[in-house]
Amino acid sequence: MLIEPRVLKGFRDSLPEAETLRTAIRNTLEASFSRFGFVPIDTPVLEYTEVLLGKGGGETDKQVYRFDDHGGRDVAMRYDLTVPFARFVAAHINELYVPFRRYHIGKVFRGENTQRGRYREFVQCDFDIVGTDTASADFDVLLMIRESFRALGVQNAKIHISHRGIFNRFLEFHGVAGKSEAVLRIVDKLRKIGREKTKAALNQALPERTTEATLEFISAAGSFDQVLSTLTELSGGESDETRRMREIGTLAQAAGILDEITFDPSITRGLDYYTGVVFETFLGGIEKIGSVCSGGRYNNLVALYSKESIPGVGASIGLDRLLAALEELKVLPPSRASSDVLITLQDELLLGHYHFLAMQLRNQGIRAEVFPEKRKLGQQFAFAERKGIPLALICGQSEAERDVVNLRLLNDRANLEGLSVDEAIREIRSRSELDGADMAAGRQSVP
Amino acid sequence: MLIEPRVLKGFRDSLPEAETLRTAIRNTLEASFSRFGFVPIDTPVLEYTEVLLGKGGGETDKQVYRFDDHGGRDVAMRYDLTVPFARFVAAHINELYVPFRRYHIGKVFRGENTQRGRYREFVQCDFDIVGTDTASADFDVLLMIRESFRALGVQNAKIHISHRGIFNRFLEFHGVAGKSEAVLRIVDKLRKIGREKTKAALNQALPERTTEATLEFISAAGSFDQVLSTLTELSGGESDETRRMREIGTLAQAAGILDEITFDPSITRGLDYYTGVVFETFLGGIEKIGSVCSGGRYNNLVALYSKESIPGVGASIGLDRLLAALEELKVLPPSRASSDVLITLQDELLLGHYHFLAMQLRNQGIRAEVFPEKRKLGQQFAFAERKGIPLALICGQSEAERDVVNLRLLNDRANLEGLSVDEAIREIRSRSELDGADMAAGRQSVP
Repeated sequence: MLIEPRVLKGFRDSLPEAETLRTAIRNTLEASFSRFGFVPIDTPVLEYTEVLLGKGGGETDKQVYRFDDHGGRDVAMRYDLTVPFARFVAAHINELYVPFRRYHIGKVFRGENTQRGRYREFVQCDFDIVGTDTASADFDVLLMIRESFRALGVQNAKIHISHRGIFNRFLEFHGVAGKSEAVLRIVDKLRKIGREKTKAALNQALPERTTEATLEFISAAGSFDQVLSTLTELSGGESDETRRMREIGTLAQAAGILDEITFDPSITRGLDYYTGVVFETFLGGIEKIGSVCSGGRYNNLVALYSKESIPGVGASIGLDRLLAALEELKVLPPSRASSDVLITLQDELLLGHYHFLAMQLRNQGIRAEVFPEKRKLGQQFAFAERKGIPLALICGQSEAERDVVNLRLLNDRANLEGLSVDEAIREIRSRSELDGADMAAGRQSVP
Repeated sequence: MLIEPRVLKGFRDSLPEAETLRTAIRNTLEASFSRFGFVPIDTPVLEYTEVLLGKGGGETDKQVYRFDDHGGRDVAMRYDLTVPFARFVAAHINELYVPFRRYHIGKVFRGENTQRGRYREFVQCDFDIVGTDTASADFDVLLMIRESFRALGVQNAKIHISHRGIFNRFLEFHGVAGKSEAVLRIVDKLRKIGREKTKAALNQALPERTTEATLEFISAAGSFDQVLSTLTELSGGESDETRRMREIGTLAQAAGILDEITFDPSITRGLDYYTGVVFETFLGGIEKIGSVCSGGRYNNLVALYSKESIPGVGASIGLDRLLAALEELKVLPPSRASSDVLITLQDELLLGHYHFLAMQLRNQGIRAEVFPEKRKLGQQFAFAERKGIPLALICGQSEAERDVVNLRLLNDRANLEGLSVDEAIREIRSRSELDGADMAAGRQSVP
């Protein structure tokens, strides 16, 4: 009896066209991270449940894939790359150089409700700087975000930034610090539910006077300096937190990118572990799909595993949402899912010659494949077209004897005949996308 | 109470130095696969247990991580990339172009006994051609193996090849086809247990006359043609299987690589699903670590899921064993785990200028990081040396006013002073390993 070749709900196969794009995006991000001195690490997919969930009990815990392994250990699959990174830093701090900049691209797993269009297996790209609590590191992460999107061909990414600490000072100043969690939960939904509903929800949680002030706080708008002034006043005056934001603004000004950063106090990152700056990234024209890169500063993340206090700041890109965004913006490179040239099988006695030709082409960086079976030439052309291969090389007994080849331009349905191998190589190179192999290579960012 | 930041037995973290090498190897392999027209795919880490194990019951099954998910489904983590590929092909055959060449690099999981130095999570790199049963496809996989190792800097990979079908014909010819499984199990261990122990084990399973012939069969040596002649005779004469081997030998001869291929009938690939050619790859000087790339032809793999008969041939490289082998051969590139230049923090008022300098360098492809904290210059140099960064850029108020910078050559403990930014960029580029970024780029294979 046959087994149905199905995949689990919330999981999916990645077919060549999509996987080629994901590979190109991953390579582009890796090159960008490297230009900022970030180095790669990896951690296991499976960990002790205790390590991933701590004393746990939150919303996340219910979504975690958790089971007993062969040795009776309570284990779980990682549901993000941040918690494993905290564990990694606590375990290896003496082997690392601080400030330590790392990136990590890997799959994470959450048994989420798939009705919301979410997948249960997805790839995250995280980058963080730990071991320093400075405006320079905060700013470096913002620059890194900007550079990542530019390398991907997106020039108009807009980073919305705020500071969790200023908001907490504001709540303290109004004597409602104890309501912090409830208020954060409400404010975080402002973008989704709108101002009126937010107000109604705040009214349930806070005194009316504080509701007005809270709305004033989260709605503050204008230039970076204007918002900073407003929030400084609303939170009771200058503080370490407002000074940090001023430093970041000064750095952005000096680097000439202040207009790409919006000081937006409605950004709070909900109940996450952030303690300082928080940020989200929106792409011009498709803001409605939400943030494509979010993060912030967390100064207590390692506390679960170590008495040492290790501050950090970082951000995370969801590869799948990013891919969807790039598709919508039409900035994806043409898919390079296949070869530059198909070497057709014209005469089986020449098969060794075909493989030898392929080797010569590959040594010039050309992606070449030999069609492995005797079929009609038209069928071989159809195969090439289906796979997106633009050229077919044809060589029969008479061409082989003269050491020449013919090229078929499949899009134009035209032929170039009697080319030497060197001439053929030049033709193929000039017609292939060799120079577009790396998204990053073709699109270095210009500030 | 603190939680110990430990990892599970058989799992491990990958620190930046190792992970940088793994990333370079992966990129090199991907570039090699692309040159042969192989395209990437991905499949889920979690699948229905039934899909991965079929009606199962073998040795592998006990090692599989298996559990009930939130929805009560019996699920398992993939333990190789071959079974998911078979499922993938059965599910998507109508969306693919055949002959279909794919590669897949991903983590697999086995709860193996770690005492043998094995890990429970490891990365496999698989490449296969399905939808064709031809000598050309068999040979393409051999060429792909050769090209992969050359791209990694290994010139003396030796591929040992045999044909499962010739061995089966031999057993039939001697009237012991029914003993096939037992004999394969014994023969597969020849390399490990030696000739005498193999003989003793065979004597338990076979009549004495057949034992001698079996030993003669698996010990046949000499040139490709000599071994083929011996095996043809021992297996009762010419057959489709001996003709296939002759075709492969002819192709290898035409491509000029016959001396890199050893016809070695002791290669059987144990009880695996292979039906045709089988092969293993040994690296010159470190043959004792065993095969670093193995595979073969399987013509019934999809049978579990589909009535269609879809033949295939492919191979698999274990990334961790490969990394160990390359280390032992000392062909690894110098680790590029870090930046080309550290921009030191000399004066906090110039922090914006430092970030602007970094942006200018990065736009020239230089990997530059800004030290984020005010510390003594000697401490910043020490950080750079620890991270393997060869150069430090120093810029104080007077340099900034004159629009120049100083470079510190950390290895030479020498300084280059008063360079313009353009001069500094040239110096940094000439001293960095920019051109060695891609293992493949520097080491294109030459046949």
